[in-house]
Amino acid sequence: MSTNRLETFADGVFAIAATLLILNVDTQLASDAAIGTRLLHIWPSYAGYVVSFLTIGIIWANHHTVMNQIARVDRTFLMLSVLFLMSVAFIPFPTRLVAEHIRDDGARAATITYGITLTLVASGFNAIWFYAATGRRLLREDADEPTVRGISRTYRFGPVLYLAITLVAAASPPTGAVLFGAFALFWLFESSLFGRDRTRA
Amino acid sequence: MSTNRLETFADGVFAIAATLLILNVDTQLASDAAIGTRLLHIWPSYAGYVVSFLTIGIIWANHHTVMNQIARVDRTFLMLSVLFLMSVAFIPFPTRLVAEHIRDDGARAATITYGITLTLVASGFNAIWFYAATGRRLLREDADEPTVRGISRTYRFGPVLYLAITLVAAASPPTGAVLFGAFALFWLFESSLFGRDRTRA
Amino acid sequence: MSTNRLETFADGVFAIAATLLILNVDTQLASDAAIGTRLLHIWPSYAGYVVSFLTIGIIWANHHTVMNQIARVDRTFLMLSVLFLMSVAFIPFPTRLVAEHIRDDGARAATITYGITLTLVASGFNAIWFYAATGRRLLREDADEPTVRGISRTYRFGPVLYLAITLVAAASPPTGAVLFGAFALFWLFESSLFGRDRTRA
Amino acid sequence: MSTNRLETFADGVFAIAATLLILNVDTQLASDAAIGTRLLHIWPSYAGYVVSFLTIGIIWANHHTVMNQIARVDRTFLMLSVLFLMSVAFIPFPTRLVAEHIRDDGARAATITYGITLTLVASGFNAIWFYAATGRRLLREDADEPTVRGISRTYRFGPVLYLAITLVAAASPPTGAVLFGAFALFWLFESSLFGRDRTRA
Repeated sequence: MSTNRLETFADGVFAIAATLLILNVDTQLASDAAIGTRLLHIWPSYAGYVVSFLTIGIIWANHHTVMNQIARVDRTFLMLSVLFLMSVAFIPFPTRLVAEHIRDDGARAATITYGITLTLVASGFNAIWFYAATGRRLLREDADEPTVRGISRTYRFGPVLYLAITLVAAASPPTGAVLFGAFALFWLFESSLFGRDRTRA
Repeated sequence: MSTNRLETFADGVFAIAATLLILNVDTQLASDAAIGTRLLHIWPSYAGYVVSFLTIGIIWANHHTVMNQIARVDRTFLMLSVLFLMSVAFIPFPTRLVAEHIRDDGARAATITYGITLTLVASGFNAIWFYAATGRRLLREDADEPTVRGISRTYRFGPVLYLAITLVAAASPPTGAVLFGAFALFWLFESSLFGRDRTRA
Repeated sequence: MSTNRLETFADGVFAIAATLLILNVDTQLASDAAIGTRLLHIWPSYAGYVVSFLTIGIIWANHHTVMNQIARVDRTFLMLSVLFLMSVAFIPFPTRLVAEHIRDDGARAATITYGITLTLVASGFNAIWFYAATGRRLLREDADEPTVRGISRTYRFGPVLYLAITLVAAASPPTGAVLFGAFALFWLFESSLFGRDRTRA
Repeated sequence: MSTNRLETFADGVFAIAATLLILNVDTQLASDAAIGTRLLHIWPSYAGYVVSFLTIGIIWANHHTVMNQIARVDRTFLMLSVLFLMSVAFIPFPTRLVAEHIRDDGARAATITYGITLTLVASGFNAIWFYAATGRRLLREDADEPTVRGISRTYRFGPVLYLAITLVAAASPPTGAVLFGAFALFWLFESSLFGRDRTRA
């Protein structure tokens, strides 16, 4: 089986999960306060929208990089991909939790839920990559060994880092929320400014 | 007509139906209880999300297997596909019903609705397959006879099994709900661990 | 410009508009009545879901037939396509209106809105076809003249028929609603059973 | 990296953002007034739907034109595209704001939010174009110099114009709203009637 149809399905889930994020911003406006005040008051919804959209966008770009090294897929890879996409499609839910509760006493539960979700996303990403790369099981004949090792080295840190930020969020929810945003921005700049040589997109 | 555009449309419906499932999890949080408690309390929503996402993902992978054996489509096949996709896109509704009502006296109605929907999905899947495979009407010249017979043998059980679980759910809704989940997990493992030889993805 | 990317965008709008229909079924369950009773009571939601999903599915299949005759697109064709897709994406709204109000005194306004929407959809479909076919402006070199004339002859009736049913709905909303459903079923059977020779899919 | 998968993802976001607009029209019907009256009363929702759908459709067509000149993408281009699509996917939110508040004292805040969003969309569009075109960094070998200059000249005005309309909206919200609609219609006609020679689609 070639990789085409998996990419169509994955791109659909990425695009829909990212675009559904805007529905969460809407729900915050149900109140009757003056709209100008309300629009400023719900800034956590905008921040959550930006951080989660960037996070999904970066995962999408990385998925792209991985699929470029892969020649074909088997059923196990497909099922691992479904599990991975299931965690990606879950992101809008904890995003809304954080946006709604970062300023009340639900902040801890909300940021921990967000962190667990992203840890699962990053773990799923590693699962599909290492399943494909171990023994070069599904890789292209001409997949470049340094590139493959570069991907393995970089992506391995994802789950550990998200788990660490989740633990920080358990102690201090606002610090955790800031770190989730900083991590997304770091990846955005790292991959666009410095990442070009190592893992050619 | 080649199969390309049907696959794009089908992949769109699969991806959207799966991704919309997350909206059902959201609706469960409208209550004013403490968020930590609420997040634990709505575990049926997470379970429903996982089971239905896996079910749609497995159907998508199987659809993939079927389309790989098919060379071209005609109008009848297109219309059967629309009917099949109509039942797939219905899945988020009974998923929400089960998640919301599995712990109250609506459990029977909810699980029966879920079961009828999945029985229709599995019947629609069989309809498109047997329409294409009867007399090798739409199959590729080089479609492998053992593979074709393997698909026919395996998928035929789908509607019967879902109907059986629906009857179990009518007697005992929680047992039915557990069986729907167990069946999705069985397919997930079966196709990724043992299914590789028989129906090469 | 080739037709590829237009088809991806159009297939996205078709798939999303069809899949969003399920959200309307959900909204009908807000009441607190016993769920078994409620599930039977909202049958117009299921009927609306089926009729509108079939209608969008048939339009998608016909769009497919049309695009198969077209070799390239220009800006005017793209803009007409955007207008056409705008009317397709509107369908979930009147579908919900009809499902919610077919049994109260809003039935007339609801069915007329549904009818106007489908008349616009059918008119938009004719606009893109006749723009492409007039003087064979965008058709493929090898587009078959009888097929082209067959499409022109068949699709021309769409707007007239939908307008006629809209007028019937203004007089008798339930009759109009039944006719919208009957027309979708007629197209479903016509194109799958008899339409094969005339407009090869 | 070729441009294929970026286009699939982008088309997904365009199609979903455009199709989600219909959900905003629904929310306006929560009132208990007679449905006929309500359906006429919510005309700003229809106007907002049309203007934002056309705007997204025109951006999609222009994105098409740009991608036709581009041979390959790098990580920076991908990340700029994610930022651009993030602003596109935001459009449904201010569309709903304007539709709901254009007739009350929230009109100023709503139209300014709409204007800022479209200014960001137009700026993001320019960012991806000028990143690709500067020094012909990502352009195709055979990209036509007059076409490239034509795109640069035309799209450059987008952010300035949207910013200007936003300032008008700050002074007179209804005038701003009318100008947003007029600008979308202008682009629709300009590109379909006169734009054919300059920037061949």
